[in-house]
Amino acid sequence: MKKDKSIGVGLLGLGVVGSGVAAVLLNKQSEIAQQIGCPLTLKKILVRSSYKSRAVKVDQHLLTIDHQQILNDPDIGIVVELMGGYNPALDYIEEALRKSKHVVTANKEVMAKHGADLLCLAETQGVSISYEASVGGGIPLIAPLRQYLVANKVSALYAIINGTTNYILTKMSKESVNFQTALKSAQELGYAEANPANDIDGVDAAYKLSIMATLAFQAVVHPDDVYYDGITRLTERDFRYAKELGYAIKLLAIGKEIDDAIEVRVHSTFVPEDFLLAKVDGVYNAVQIEGDLTGKVIFYGEGAGALPTASSVTSDIIAAAYSINLGRQGISKLILPQIKPIKPISDIETCYYLRMSIADQPGIFAQIAQELGTHSISISSVIQKESDATTKTAEIVIMTHPAREQSMQQALDRIQELPVVKEIGNFIRVETLEEDSWAKKRFVLAD
Amino acid sequence: MKKDKSIGVGLLGLGVVGSGVAAVLLNKQSEIAQQIGCPLTLKKILVRSSYKSRAVKVDQHLLTIDHQQILNDPDIGIVVELMGGYNPALDYIEEALRKSKHVVTANKEVMAKHGADLLCLAETQGVSISYEASVGGGIPLIAPLRQYLVANKVSALYAIINGTTNYILTKMSKESVNFQTALKSAQELGYAEANPANDIDGVDAAYKLSIMATLAFQAVVHPDDVYYDGITRLTERDFRYAKELGYAIKLLAIGKEIDDAIEVRVHSTFVPEDFLLAKVDGVYNAVQIEGDLTGKVIFYGEGAGALPTASSVTSDIIAAAYSINLGRQGISKLILPQIKPIKPISDIETCYYLRMSIADQPGIFAQIAQELGTHSISISSVIQKESDATTKTAEIVIMTHPAREQSMQQALDRIQELPVVKEIGNFIRVETLEEDSWAKKRFVLAD
Repeated sequence: MKKDKSIGVGLLGLGVVGSGVAAVLLNKQSEIAQQIGCPLTLKKILVRSSYKSRAVKVDQHLLTIDHQQILNDPDIGIVVELMGGYNPALDYIEEALRKSKHVVTANKEVMAKHGADLLCLAETQGVSISYEASVGGGIPLIAPLRQYLVANKVSALYAIINGTTNYILTKMSKESVNFQTALKSAQELGYAEANPANDIDGVDAAYKLSIMATLAFQAVVHPDDVYYDGITRLTERDFRYAKELGYAIKLLAIGKEIDDAIEVRVHSTFVPEDFLLAKVDGVYNAVQIEGDLTGKVIFYGEGAGALPTASSVTSDIIAAAYSINLGRQGISKLILPQIKPIKPISDIETCYYLRMSIADQPGIFAQIAQELGTHSISISSVIQKESDATTKTAEIVIMTHPAREQSMQQALDRIQELPVVKEIGNFIRVETLEEDSWAKKRFVLAD
Repeated sequence: MKKDKSIGVGLLGLGVVGSGVAAVLLNKQSEIAQQIGCPLTLKKILVRSSYKSRAVKVDQHLLTIDHQQILNDPDIGIVVELMGGYNPALDYIEEALRKSKHVVTANKEVMAKHGADLLCLAETQGVSISYEASVGGGIPLIAPLRQYLVANKVSALYAIINGTTNYILTKMSKESVNFQTALKSAQELGYAEANPANDIDGVDAAYKLSIMATLAFQAVVHPDDVYYDGITRLTERDFRYAKELGYAIKLLAIGKEIDDAIEVRVHSTFVPEDFLLAKVDGVYNAVQIEGDLTGKVIFYGEGAGALPTASSVTSDIIAAAYSINLGRQGISKLILPQIKPIKPISDIETCYYLRMSIADQPGIFAQIAQELGTHSISISSVIQKESDATTKTAEIVIMTHPAREQSMQQALDRIQELPVVKEIGNFIRVETLEEDSWAKKRFVLAD
């Protein structure tokens, strides 16, 4: 080990995550040096303004408002991008790689949109780009998918991967409050931003799913390939019925490979309450991966926040520094042997929960059942609820067997037109997570 | 990439796991070659007898009963040890490393007893030894601990790491059967061996804990350092009371670092039923790790079996082959900066569940409470149960606040001598898993 040299690190960004990483690099210097075999020096931090007061004490002379002071510094071997957002983050990452600096990033948008290209660029330049922190905060997810589950053919992944929405859904479920109240609470606690759209509409989860699905299915999955739908249509009633029926409601990011086609979607989902994923509450994240060798594997932990994210970023920095110290490149290139077709949402097949208000008179249910039957959708159970004598309306909840999404959409269009149907309150997709479905996909040892 | 070369693999052992790995290497050849960048060839398999019929179809000419045919073959770059047991496995591993072959092993006993030395030897020889499959079957655990949580100071780990005992405990809990019946069922299903001692006495879990604790606390933890006690003393009553009190009973492997001393122990444990670990049932394994940055992270999956274990072994083989192909060494050396004292079991502090039969007459409980009080043990709750009119005995269950093990043992010795105490039915340690206890150990961002 060469004890005399030191490896320089430049940070781009000193927000929540940047402050966490800076604090860890500064306060854990000796532990980190022991891991790497030489010291690591935080040389420069790019900030928007060098006069702002900050969560973490940083020497004023480390701060710069000029990114070239980092990208052009020959003593900086590792550039850590924690600015977030699309540009200029992408430009800076590309420039750092072109200058043969190792890059560590927590940027899900950039990695979702350009991950495969950036990994190729890194390989060409003889450096690495790592992005463990882009998905699941402090939970190791990218590494397992890239390296430790690589002998598997993954048939499915199910992820609770957005802490903001999981907090809101947990609150709605446990405290029977409505969406707005739960969102307000999340904002007060700092779990949701003032403009929460990216989280509650499923965009954030879609980015993360595209990153994970690309690794799991070994084919590029672009964020535009991901169908997403948020949690804003959920009501207290849906949670009440879900409980009655034995389900939790989660914003699930789902990836499946069925007959060599990939389906990737993010939406509110009924999850059977006896599965571990149904029990992941609050801001925690969890990802369930089903491989033909491992079977079901679940990774669980805090999916966001300064410290968990700093854990992943720092581990990536240590790995990059370790490679530099030993004169190695580190794993970089993504090996994506195939291009696989992406299923449109209309082609997926799943079970459904339907809630609708109907006129409280005999024979109505038969009309609805007939419309469903016409579209080859069979019903697994029905609950009729809460007749309202004054408005003469009743509410019915229908659970279906697996049906094609397109058929369901067509059936709903027809049902909505029935004069006796006042309103389709909600329809929510159901994941049965039955072991049966993937047990069949396991590797066969003997023939 | 050099497309012309091929990397030779030699297997030592063709039992359950060996057969799984052989089948995966033979049937996933093209996928594996794509990952590595060149073909991988299974060249030789060491067996005890080459005439036995086997679970997996293997060309007869691959089999050998002479280990030197593998260890002396210059075309074999990776030796995969899947024989299990202590020797000759250890000898073969050492010889392979000395001949500068990369080694992949699933051997928990060898890695628990000699891991640090073998990792050093590998480093010296310019090769790697990897052992992901030695703990937790198909769950990536070694890699996260070695690499992806390395920025953390780990304060505690809690592991359900033996599938046999977890199956037995789940069966005892859900079906209210006794230990012998549950064991028999485990044996019939192939989850327990004819001689189940290593599993039910906690030895297997102790090996795995010593491997994980060494990585988590960055100090060598030898298996002899681990206190272990099995599950054979548990009765149906203990499960009934546990449920009443809101707990599950699990064989927990526990590692903690408190004030720079390490405590490592394996024993039946009361786990609050609302924690995820309490919900890990059947042959599943789960490991909860608490880091100062990540907070609580949980890894869950199938902890044994041919396919999950083959998943980890094959991933290790692919990583070793990838390194060979690129002319790199791969991460090998363990960096264990400190020697840390190990606490004897008498020094630990925890809560306890006590169950005892006493004479059914007034004033008895006061005598017991006084003995506990004399030893500074305070009671958190008491249930008196099932007076038996004919024998004039009652059963009491006492839950205590945290107490020192030594005090508890001394108090129990005294209580046992009380003439009114017929029998101490059981005493079981309780883990509260309270976030409070480790939240205090988290990294502080700002001062």
